[in-house]
Amino acid sequence: MPISALKGDLVTANHILFQQGVLDAFGHVSVRDPDRPDRFHMSRALAPGLVTVEDIVELDFDGAAVRPVRGSLYVERYIHCEIYRLRPDVQSIVHSHSPTVIPFGISQVELKPVYHRAYFLGQGVPVFEIRDVAGARNNMLVNDQTRGQALAQVLGKGNVSLLRGHGNVVVGPNIRTAVTRAIETEVNAKLQLQAVMLGGPINYLSAEEAETLGAELARTQPSDKRGADRVWDVLKQQAEAARRLLQGT
Amino acid sequence: MPISALKGDLVTANHILFQQGVLDAFGHVSVRDPDRPDRFHMSRALAPGLVTVEDIVELDFDGAAVRPVRGSLYVERYIHCEIYRLRPDVQSIVHSHSPTVIPFGISQVELKPVYHRAYFLGQGVPVFEIRDVAGARNNMLVNDQTRGQALAQVLGKGNVSLLRGHGNVVVGPNIRTAVTRAIETEVNAKLQLQAVMLGGPINYLSAEEAETLGAELARTQPSDKRGADRVWDVLKQQAEAARRLLQGT
Amino acid sequence: MPISALKGDLVTANHILFQQGVLDAFGHVSVRDPDRPDRFHMSRALAPGLVTVEDIVELDFDGAAVRPVRGSLYVERYIHCEIYRLRPDVQSIVHSHSPTVIPFGISQVELKPVYHRAYFLGQGVPVFEIRDVAGARNNMLVNDQTRGQALAQVLGKGNVSLLRGHGNVVVGPNIRTAVTRAIETEVNAKLQLQAVMLGGPINYLSAEEAETLGAELARTQPSDKRGADRVWDVLKQQAEAARRLLQGT
Amino acid sequence: MPISALKGDLVTANHILFQQGVLDAFGHVSVRDPDRPDRFHMSRALAPGLVTVEDIVELDFDGAAVRPVRGSLYVERYIHCEIYRLRPDVQSIVHSHSPTVIPFGISQVELKPVYHRAYFLGQGVPVFEIRDVAGARNNMLVNDQTRGQALAQVLGKGNVSLLRGHGNVVVGPNIRTAVTRAIETEVNAKLQLQAVMLGGPINYLSAEEAETLGAELARTQPSDKRGADRVWDVLKQQAEAARRLLQGT
Repeated sequence: MPISALKGDLVTANHILFQQGVLDAFGHVSVRDPDRPDRFHMSRALAPGLVTVEDIVELDFDGAAVRPVRGSLYVERYIHCEIYRLRPDVQSIVHSHSPTVIPFGISQVELKPVYHRAYFLGQGVPVFEIRDVAGARNNMLVNDQTRGQALAQVLGKGNVSLLRGHGNVVVGPNIRTAVTRAIETEVNAKLQLQAVMLGGPINYLSAEEAETLGAELARTQPSDKRGADRVWDVLKQQAEAARRLLQGT
Repeated sequence: MPISALKGDLVTANHILFQQGVLDAFGHVSVRDPDRPDRFHMSRALAPGLVTVEDIVELDFDGAAVRPVRGSLYVERYIHCEIYRLRPDVQSIVHSHSPTVIPFGISQVELKPVYHRAYFLGQGVPVFEIRDVAGARNNMLVNDQTRGQALAQVLGKGNVSLLRGHGNVVVGPNIRTAVTRAIETEVNAKLQLQAVMLGGPINYLSAEEAETLGAELARTQPSDKRGADRVWDVLKQQAEAARRLLQGT
Repeated sequence: MPISALKGDLVTANHILFQQGVLDAFGHVSVRDPDRPDRFHMSRALAPGLVTVEDIVELDFDGAAVRPVRGSLYVERYIHCEIYRLRPDVQSIVHSHSPTVIPFGISQVELKPVYHRAYFLGQGVPVFEIRDVAGARNNMLVNDQTRGQALAQVLGKGNVSLLRGHGNVVVGPNIRTAVTRAIETEVNAKLQLQAVMLGGPINYLSAEEAETLGAELARTQPSDKRGADRVWDVLKQQAEAARRLLQGT
Repeated sequence: MPISALKGDLVTANHILFQQGVLDAFGHVSVRDPDRPDRFHMSRALAPGLVTVEDIVELDFDGAAVRPVRGSLYVERYIHCEIYRLRPDVQSIVHSHSPTVIPFGISQVELKPVYHRAYFLGQGVPVFEIRDVAGARNNMLVNDQTRGQALAQVLGKGNVSLLRGHGNVVVGPNIRTAVTRAIETEVNAKLQLQAVMLGGPINYLSAEEAETLGAELARTQPSDKRGADRVWDVLKQQAEAARRLLQGT
């Protein structure tokens, strides 16, 4: 996908994640530059629901904008810098305060896949504890390189990491898959919470099942594109309808 | 109902089940052909919210399309093939990832009718465990004849079966009843979950009550049509309004 | 309020209760005739969201329509007949499947007022068990005079009674208050469920508080009209907006 | 901000809090007059969703309107009078029946910050028990000076206080922050309830973290304005869209 089309998807990703309730007035989504793998694109500091293509900026891994920026940058852009640096396979990242996921980072039940669409959680969902890197007197924000590196280390080879008392980060091999995964992570959290409430033991997706489905999707759907596209078309239509209502057009 | 009207209902069923949150970007609904009981109709592989009458295809029980198809077929169409083959009384089938139903397939509480509108659950709601037919290293999908047969066996003479870690399947004597039942299955799951949270023992609909009401509806409402039609009119109006908003028309 | 205005309120009540999710495709609301206290008005058998003033019929306490009716009558109209007969103070009745209320009728926690707006629950919320009047092999419906009388007896002097595995009935001194109470009953059920989940003992509204607030509202707001009107204006606006969307106008 | 702009924000605050489900047909939001710190502005008694700039009235700390008022005043305006009197730092107050917050005032779990956006709860969230000031036979309403004073005393130096069996009160250093906090209080209640359901012990935001983030926001964002403005823009857009739908314009 050429960069101009990718930027269009990035704007749509912001609107979809807002309309789906994964992002609220905060959080951000980014995509790695296809030609310059040491750079990535994301909005300047703005509520995701209001992002337009003019707001997209190009950043390097030090968190610096390549060109002058109108307004300010997200203070937590280091999440993206350090994950892209550590994980060449990652092409897109979502950081959100996705509501039902937060309780899993502060209580005693590990987030695990309870249904097949959340197979990507099968590699484990570690919890990033900011006190470990920033001390007891911290501001809860991943707003510098050291904290970003520590988070990237905790994520490791996984697809999702929780940030205790804050939110989560989801990565993917392309932007549409990352967006779908961010939504499915929220869905899985709701389902798992309800299963816990019904009473366990819970019959989770086994590691073998998660792996088998993941491998098959990677093989039959280059970059998981087919399934992600089917979801994308529906989500985009919903997001655009919501925008028309919001803008009164 | 002539086949052309039935196809219209099938398109509407897709939109209703999407708008009600029973289907998301996945899942499918089908209807048996009234003149050729060894065939059925469903959409080609497409998000249910986007289905139009041009997308409806006719399939035989081997999962083959009777006429050439633009695009691909749902990989899980074997669910429909094998249930229609085993159950001549079934005229319509819904397979969904209906959210609140999934937790009942992975935890320790059996889905049972808690209110009269869910009387059709009274015959029992078995859970299909795909590991039993496809082994530990499976991809979670009912994507061949063997798995479809195993699921149909588990469903037996019932109206609903859960698929562990995946979703559920609901059948009915006509399409409007199947759609209503799919929605009521989700409603019942929500009510039962809340009753469990309040604390039991729970006063379920007795087998006699479920049977008495079911028999009465079958008698007074040919094919459960009257009640289903009252619901259908409302659901259709809602689904059409949602489509206008989505399409900006 | 003259009968013509009252009928307008009755149509609006149907739309409000549907839009608020208290009524779905079933349930009904009625109002006693101001000039003939042995008669009442309700819609013919129709989904509440679709009711117009042409659908309103006048009934006597035997459940017979005073004038010829296009279509059929609600099979559960005897709920209304027998409560109006037993309770001269009641001017309006809502029977619904209001979702969060149902679990309280089948589990082990009594519905009690947890916040001031639900003061009218303070007189107790008995559960009607249809098996007591209709035996084990019953169809769950209050569809004759005997069952209606039994339900009216269980309701007694209260404002709300639950129907086990079915729904609830709410009464009021006028239609706007009855509608508000039906909505507040659902709200209270949600709040109480959450309080139970947090863990008790729960600090309920005391009998004295419920009584004091109820007496004050009855005194300062003739027929509880002022508070009910403030709610009504908002609810009516929402219901009318929903109808425009549904009808595409 | 000049008083005319502030009144515009006050009207918008009413619409936002209604559209977000923090206020229903009841509850109120006020702002202190920037030039006369012994006065404040709020709507006359009206459902918040219907408030226009013509409905804004100016009140003194005895709860008297400075100019003649069309209609009546909120009976619970003393909440605002007494908090403004006791707390010179407070510039805006929201009193609501915000749904998920109510259960925390009647059960056994203290409302505490579970994620960083709710840092302002870190100073503690006391519960106001009206029986302590108004006796067992009370009407649950803070409708005089004595009760208002008692509530203000319980709130103390905090940002939020719960009213047992009634609702909550939230204060802020400006109107946009107060509105954001009222919404975040509801969000935090939902998150905390879910964490309790998953099972503890719960890893709350520590006092040091709440304090550190609060201090940083106060320093980098004069009056917490930057963050609050980003949220405000989104919320205002949503509220205005909802109003267009409600009014059919």
